[in-house]
Amino acid sequence: MNKLLIVGTVAFDAIETPFGKTDKILGGAGTYIGLSAAFFNLQSAIVSVVGDDFPQEYLDLLTERNIDISGLEIVKGGKTFFWSGRYHNDLNSRDTLNTQLNVLADFQPKVPENYKNADVVMLGNLHPLVQSGVLDQLESKPKLVVLDTMNFWMDCALPELLDVIKRVDVITINDEEARQLSGEYSLVKAAAKIQEMGPEYVVIKKGEHGALLFHGNNVFFAPALPLEEVFDPTGAGDTFAGGFAGFITQSENVSFENMKNAIIYGSNLASFCVEKFGTERMVSLDKKEVVSRLKQFKSLTQFDIEL
Amino acid sequence: MNKLLIVGTVAFDAIETPFGKTDKILGGAGTYIGLSAAFFNLQSAIVSVVGDDFPQEYLDLLTERNIDISGLEIVKGGKTFFWSGRYHNDLNSRDTLNTQLNVLADFQPKVPENYKNADVVMLGNLHPLVQSGVLDQLESKPKLVVLDTMNFWMDCALPELLDVIKRVDVITINDEEARQLSGEYSLVKAAAKIQEMGPEYVVIKKGEHGALLFHGNNVFFAPALPLEEVFDPTGAGDTFAGGFAGFITQSENVSFENMKNAIIYGSNLASFCVEKFGTERMVSLDKKEVVSRLKQFKSLTQFDIEL
Repeated sequence: MNKLLIVGTVAFDAIETPFGKTDKILGGAGTYIGLSAAFFNLQSAIVSVVGDDFPQEYLDLLTERNIDISGLEIVKGGKTFFWSGRYHNDLNSRDTLNTQLNVLADFQPKVPENYKNADVVMLGNLHPLVQSGVLDQLESKPKLVVLDTMNFWMDCALPELLDVIKRVDVITINDEEARQLSGEYSLVKAAAKIQEMGPEYVVIKKGEHGALLFHGNNVFFAPALPLEEVFDPTGAGDTFAGGFAGFITQSENVSFENMKNAIIYGSNLASFCVEKFGTERMVSLDKKEVVSRLKQFKSLTQFDIEL
Repeated sequence: MNKLLIVGTVAFDAIETPFGKTDKILGGAGTYIGLSAAFFNLQSAIVSVVGDDFPQEYLDLLTERNIDISGLEIVKGGKTFFWSGRYHNDLNSRDTLNTQLNVLADFQPKVPENYKNADVVMLGNLHPLVQSGVLDQLESKPKLVVLDTMNFWMDCALPELLDVIKRVDVITINDEEARQLSGEYSLVKAAAKIQEMGPEYVVIKKGEHGALLFHGNNVFFAPALPLEEVFDPTGAGDTFAGGFAGFITQSENVSFENMKNAIIYGSNLASFCVEKFGTERMVSLDKKEVVSRLKQFKSLTQFDIEL
């Protein structure tokens, strides 16, 4: 089985949406990526950090899905990263109510020995120096390195971000962030400029409006599944990235054609994530549901015009 | 050849976008629908009204495309409907600067005798009483009646709008209007409620984010083609509707499966419309370009996951 190395936060989230609110629940980019990638036939490991306030049941939830947590540092006496936020009525925007970095402030990632030759590396949203620090520890060049990031690092660590962007094959980023990073309003132009920064493939996530994959002059579009109700968008982008990286790892095929399938899988898994609070839906999800919904994606987009 | 009856404004527009501004140029929903439908193998007629200030060259432009204008009333001494607007920098919103109804104020539509048995009727955005007035004149039930409308009529002629909506098979409407008409934020729920109002098929236009087709529990999505630059969105929705109705008329097939193709054609034609000011691009467009871009739509959306 191929190996997927995941870097990203493992955290507590407290979420408010128009449909309700939660206390501290399991969250973090690394968590969502790991849960999503676990739907594929692969070996995976998460590199991250938590405090000793992090419950054993959450650790069990990861290991039960065959996610290697030997690279998940548990800091004695430390407190786990905490984020809380409130979504607006349209669920397209949110306010951060509280961020406590805690153990994340001094995080030095340590890649497990047997993942230094990972086939695919998924760098979840974190400080770009942490992302670079993981790449520095690898002993062989992965087939594919995927990076996710956000506007926060563009605002406060742009040089470090540009350094790590140079080193990756695929960047996943949302539409507003793509505009900010490139200075271009048109997403076509933005993707072209971001490709010049390093990544051969640019994935622009548009939330409920789907995702675009750019590579040279090629472009592919995966819609988001139209849902009766989006309950909680938290983790959707990370779940998308986990599905993308997980499918690529399983299929060992890094062609543009295969990446089309990978972003369909990413959209598919993200469409489940938003149906319940936090990781709840991803934890209850089974593979049959994933396959059944892939059929919906086919009928949603496939047409028969003869040319 | 099958007959398409088009009802809609034929007008003067003055447009300002971030890229420039125009004096009075050819515009109007009926114009854009007619120019778009002219790419298909069909007979079409426009029912509309202009003043005698309307230039012969614009009339010629329609008749050269085999559009029957015997139902286009020219009011002696009257002035043609005029609209001017200014688009914001993101081109997703606009301010109306001036609206002069002129001859449109007292418009009584007259369907030409040989179009009273039209195969398909495309009711472009106009007062719902005008739309109903056209349906009243038909002598046989068309294979398909498509209605386009806008929020303005929901605000000021809702009962009349609901009356005509009951009588049509397909409604095309944008996302905000679908929400206003249904009182539902979720587009899936909005489409279900609008189907209860009469139309078996609901097309929700999302501009640069594509279009959704709903029919019972079936849904299909056509993306907008990602473009380097959108120059002027005026007429894009009408061009979309014209492509949809034109393809259905040509193909004589009103199944859901065929409507998928129809909204791809609609998106395809609309992607050209926005490339230049007003009708300029639609006038210069040839069929080879349309076919070539259909190939782009295929590679944009088709994928190969085996299920």
